[in-house]
Amino acid sequence: MLERIQKENDIKELNLEELEELALEIREFLVEKISKTGGHLASNLGVVELTMAMHLMFHLPEDKIIWDVGHQAYTHKLLTGRKAGFDELRKYGGMSGFPKRKESACDAFDTGHSSTSISAGLGYVQARDLKGEDYSVVSVIGDGSLTGGMAYEALNNASSLKTNFIIVLNDNHMSISENVGGMSKYLAELRTADIYTGLKKGVTNALEKVPLVGDSLIEHIRRTKSSIKQLVVPGMFFEDMGITYLGPVPGHNIGLLCKAFKEARKINGPVLLHVMTKKGKGYEPAELKPDKFHGVGPFQVETGELETPKDKDTYTDVFGKVLCDEAGRNPDVVAITAAMADGTGLTRFRQMYPNRFFDVGIAEEHGVTFAAGLSAGGMKPVFAVYSSFLQRAYDQLIHDVALQNLPVVLAIDRAGLVGSDGETHQGIFDLSYLSSIPNMVVMTPKHKWELADMLRFALSYDGPVAIRYPRGSAFDAYRQFRAPVVYGKSEMLYEEKDIAILSVGHMFESALQARERLKESGYSCTLVNARFVKPIDEAIIASLCRNHRLIVTVEENVQTGGYGEHVLEYACRKDLGVKVLTLALPDDYVEHGNIGVLRKETGIDVESIIRRIKDAYGKL
Amino acid sequence: MLERIQKENDIKELNLEELEELALEIREFLVEKISKTGGHLASNLGVVELTMAMHLMFHLPEDKIIWDVGHQAYTHKLLTGRKAGFDELRKYGGMSGFPKRKESACDAFDTGHSSTSISAGLGYVQARDLKGEDYSVVSVIGDGSLTGGMAYEALNNASSLKTNFIIVLNDNHMSISENVGGMSKYLAELRTADIYTGLKKGVTNALEKVPLVGDSLIEHIRRTKSSIKQLVVPGMFFEDMGITYLGPVPGHNIGLLCKAFKEARKINGPVLLHVMTKKGKGYEPAELKPDKFHGVGPFQVETGELETPKDKDTYTDVFGKVLCDEAGRNPDVVAITAAMADGTGLTRFRQMYPNRFFDVGIAEEHGVTFAAGLSAGGMKPVFAVYSSFLQRAYDQLIHDVALQNLPVVLAIDRAGLVGSDGETHQGIFDLSYLSSIPNMVVMTPKHKWELADMLRFALSYDGPVAIRYPRGSAFDAYRQFRAPVVYGKSEMLYEEKDIAILSVGHMFESALQARERLKESGYSCTLVNARFVKPIDEAIIASLCRNHRLIVTVEENVQTGGYGEHVLEYACRKDLGVKVLTLALPDDYVEHGNIGVLRKETGIDVESIIRRIKDAYGKL
Repeated sequence: MLERIQKENDIKELNLEELEELALEIREFLVEKISKTGGHLASNLGVVELTMAMHLMFHLPEDKIIWDVGHQAYTHKLLTGRKAGFDELRKYGGMSGFPKRKESACDAFDTGHSSTSISAGLGYVQARDLKGEDYSVVSVIGDGSLTGGMAYEALNNASSLKTNFIIVLNDNHMSISENVGGMSKYLAELRTADIYTGLKKGVTNALEKVPLVGDSLIEHIRRTKSSIKQLVVPGMFFEDMGITYLGPVPGHNIGLLCKAFKEARKINGPVLLHVMTKKGKGYEPAELKPDKFHGVGPFQVETGELETPKDKDTYTDVFGKVLCDEAGRNPDVVAITAAMADGTGLTRFRQMYPNRFFDVGIAEEHGVTFAAGLSAGGMKPVFAVYSSFLQRAYDQLIHDVALQNLPVVLAIDRAGLVGSDGETHQGIFDLSYLSSIPNMVVMTPKHKWELADMLRFALSYDGPVAIRYPRGSAFDAYRQFRAPVVYGKSEMLYEEKDIAILSVGHMFESALQARERLKESGYSCTLVNARFVKPIDEAIIASLCRNHRLIVTVEENVQTGGYGEHVLEYACRKDLGVKVLTLALPDDYVEHGNIGVLRKETGIDVESIIRRIKDAYGKL
Repeated sequence: MLERIQKENDIKELNLEELEELALEIREFLVEKISKTGGHLASNLGVVELTMAMHLMFHLPEDKIIWDVGHQAYTHKLLTGRKAGFDELRKYGGMSGFPKRKESACDAFDTGHSSTSISAGLGYVQARDLKGEDYSVVSVIGDGSLTGGMAYEALNNASSLKTNFIIVLNDNHMSISENVGGMSKYLAELRTADIYTGLKKGVTNALEKVPLVGDSLIEHIRRTKSSIKQLVVPGMFFEDMGITYLGPVPGHNIGLLCKAFKEARKINGPVLLHVMTKKGKGYEPAELKPDKFHGVGPFQVETGELETPKDKDTYTDVFGKVLCDEAGRNPDVVAITAAMADGTGLTRFRQMYPNRFFDVGIAEEHGVTFAAGLSAGGMKPVFAVYSSFLQRAYDQLIHDVALQNLPVVLAIDRAGLVGSDGETHQGIFDLSYLSSIPNMVVMTPKHKWELADMLRFALSYDGPVAIRYPRGSAFDAYRQFRAPVVYGKSEMLYEEKDIAILSVGHMFESALQARERLKESGYSCTLVNARFVKPIDEAIIASLCRNHRLIVTVEENVQTGGYGEHVLEYACRKDLGVKVLTLALPDDYVEHGNIGVLRKETGIDVESIIRRIKDAYGKL
């Protein structure tokens, strides 16, 4: 069947039996391909029928489908003529793992972060109506993404619509790991309630308790409230916001799904169609461990075993271990995650200190201000978060944490280039946006031991501290370089003359190699580990400027507002009279691909570093 | 009575009669003082009794009261021994118009932006419980602030609490101007519903329509839904999220309020206490025009007339007028505000083009992505927003607008120093955070005509553009300087030699004066209007470097990542061999006060500019 799908809308030629066959083939195809390339598996297996139903009921590219987060759009890509792309999925120059407007006219909106689809969809709807067009707009959002405040802002704003807008709630009872919060519980009630029975029983109980004559309003309401709550009116939460609720609909039955979309399309206004799906559906290892198969590397199809079991600690592992140790010593240490306990290394912390662990949902804004509140209340909060997601809380860092100079530790994972997730996930802006914030201290470790030392320093520091480190294996050589972490001080590693390289965090490894190679070519080359991106170590820079002819900074962050520019600004302000070469990422988004390739493309791999240093030195 | 309140908890000595007298005196005091200093009036008049009730029922500073936004904390300040501070309210060195922990132990958390109080309060609650303490935590949030997604994230997260946390919903049916969205309608229903009648009638109707045997689930639910909706269960929206709902309570009756707080305190879990207040209560001009008296300058107490009716157009006015003109020419132009139609100059646009005007609520995150959706749908969206509030949408700018290079215009008002609102409202980070975003174009006008030209340019540009301009009167001299706006090009105003000043946006006026004074002292001084902060005009900078000995940049933004550093980086990268002096704001928060004073304190007033230029030039 898959052979017959060459482009969008081809699916409409199939009959129901063929469609069911197609669903099977799609699952086989996805498991087979992703087992080789790696990628997002469980979420994609969960929406095969849902995607097919949408492609049957809508006409692409005229109708707009907007995928929240977007990692679940593989079937959509398959059904829109991109089957061949799966061989190069998430590879440099190959197909993205997310919707991309430049990849296909059928991708209505680029996504990657959570909770944006209703906002974008509402924009399309208003544009459609103003232009007098009549296409359909469908935003597909997971129950996890519904914990993000933006989704609520958009629902609130959509309520006044008088024209059709379909919001599909893809409810698999999970975000990346298990879901949290009031909304999650509410959805669980919707899923499981026997609506008719619940309705009747609840109403009877409630009516019995309604007082005929009243004393105080409040007390009466409280007394009847508990019985009234048994009255499950499906989706009243959404109805209260002005959104028509339909469902719940079983999400792996193409016929019922199509019928539901037909219903949904008839409504003049915003509709929330509640679809129940199963993450990992149809591939047993993924059904059993959906979080393991959320984003996955190559694996054995038969067993579900990962092909390359990791042998080295990641920075994430090191962070998690050290934080547990420190929490053992200091009862004030608490940990916060925004729905990323596993990804940020907090799984063990959660087990060891359940009362001191807080998963706030996909809610970085709230997470940061919640941390500020914990800090004001005397705790030592550590918010572990991915770099690109912390962008969500830039204002909260300025306004709630740093303004009050509150001791909050930001453990920023996935900083720098992250690789195959591409543009939306690269953590390449954090040094810039954090540096612009007064009172903020910004640190970057060069190897695993330094991350441990920095975390301990951060927990003892009386103000906001960010530590940023990358995805993947932690550098675990050069343990001898472990001078005590001192506020605002860089670390001298090799002291020579002529050229001085200041490397930022995990660029240490590349800087080391570059220095060795430069030495082999006869250059004299100092190497300093920056450690503090803010405040910079002015003393060491001044001293380097006196003894060297070329100062080189190396960082995996955009150049604007990064470490290199801090050094440059200081050297110029003090008239230190030395050439500063700032090696950083260009002012551009960086697409998906192997990190080595991306570094080469952006000019910060070892070869480029050497070449650029030689060039600059040659011109002195 | 007010004389008897010397410090926190003194209010507890008064009897009910005296309390009512005190409420009157507080209102008189506030009207009298604010009529002289200016400040937030209507919101403060609305919460006099609410504040008194809290001070009666709780014990400060042990118990924590967190004011959302915080501009309504004047009565709280009066009741905590800060009466004398009102003479210097919002003046440099004087009392802040917002809660400040450094001002009083009774201010539990600094606020200024919307929707943060539940997050901060929840942090305090968790800290309290972990430390085994037993104080009360009360977050006071307006119905306007409840449209912000952070508030929802926090409610969602609070649902699992097993200990007391009181959230006061101060419902005045307004944010700064009238409120919007589904939540607003829902609250209106809660306020007005005759609960008992509604409950009985709705239940009867609903029961009649419950089908005994069913065909499809969806259709049945839909059929009964409309009748079930008559069933008003008070606060079920909040109850569905796991929050106990109490209310609504009349907000100007101290006795009832105290009783309600007593009830609320008994509950082991999060409680939302719905209090109905009237903005401007007790002062007729403010009751009639609460938005005019939201934030107000000095006025005549008797008439409510503003003392200094403005005679000059503000940048806000100019923006509003020109946008209306352009919208007349181009039907694709649409305008978006986040609950700030008046403040951002969109009142006339709303009247003229109601279908093309969108107030999304206090929801900057959604606002930006909604704009991206409108743009993807073919419209020309203009999001008018205050600089410090746009910080909320930093990720959405990176992830939803600029990544897809979507033509969205950001009209950024209140950029630079804003004056008396202080730290939380200064728009001093925008040039930095916008510059770090790939594809983003950043412009700054020097006078009112240039704002008009830039807006027209932005509307014709095929990508994201930000135009940032300050609060207050638009500079309206030097109309002769009006060269056409060309992408990436600065504007040469006076071409001489030795010193070249590049002024950014509204710093033009100061730069002009500085240049004239320098000329009088015998210096030769070029003046360039930067216009584009991103991309910078490399050609003109290269040319200036050839002909001048000192390049000076002047901007009202923090130095890190701002225009000056862009120029510096370019000059160094190209080895242009000239001293660059970057005049900008220091790496610090800037408190409230007159803008002239603040510029002086931060070293960017005319005198400081001249002095710093002479110093630098003297050292060459």
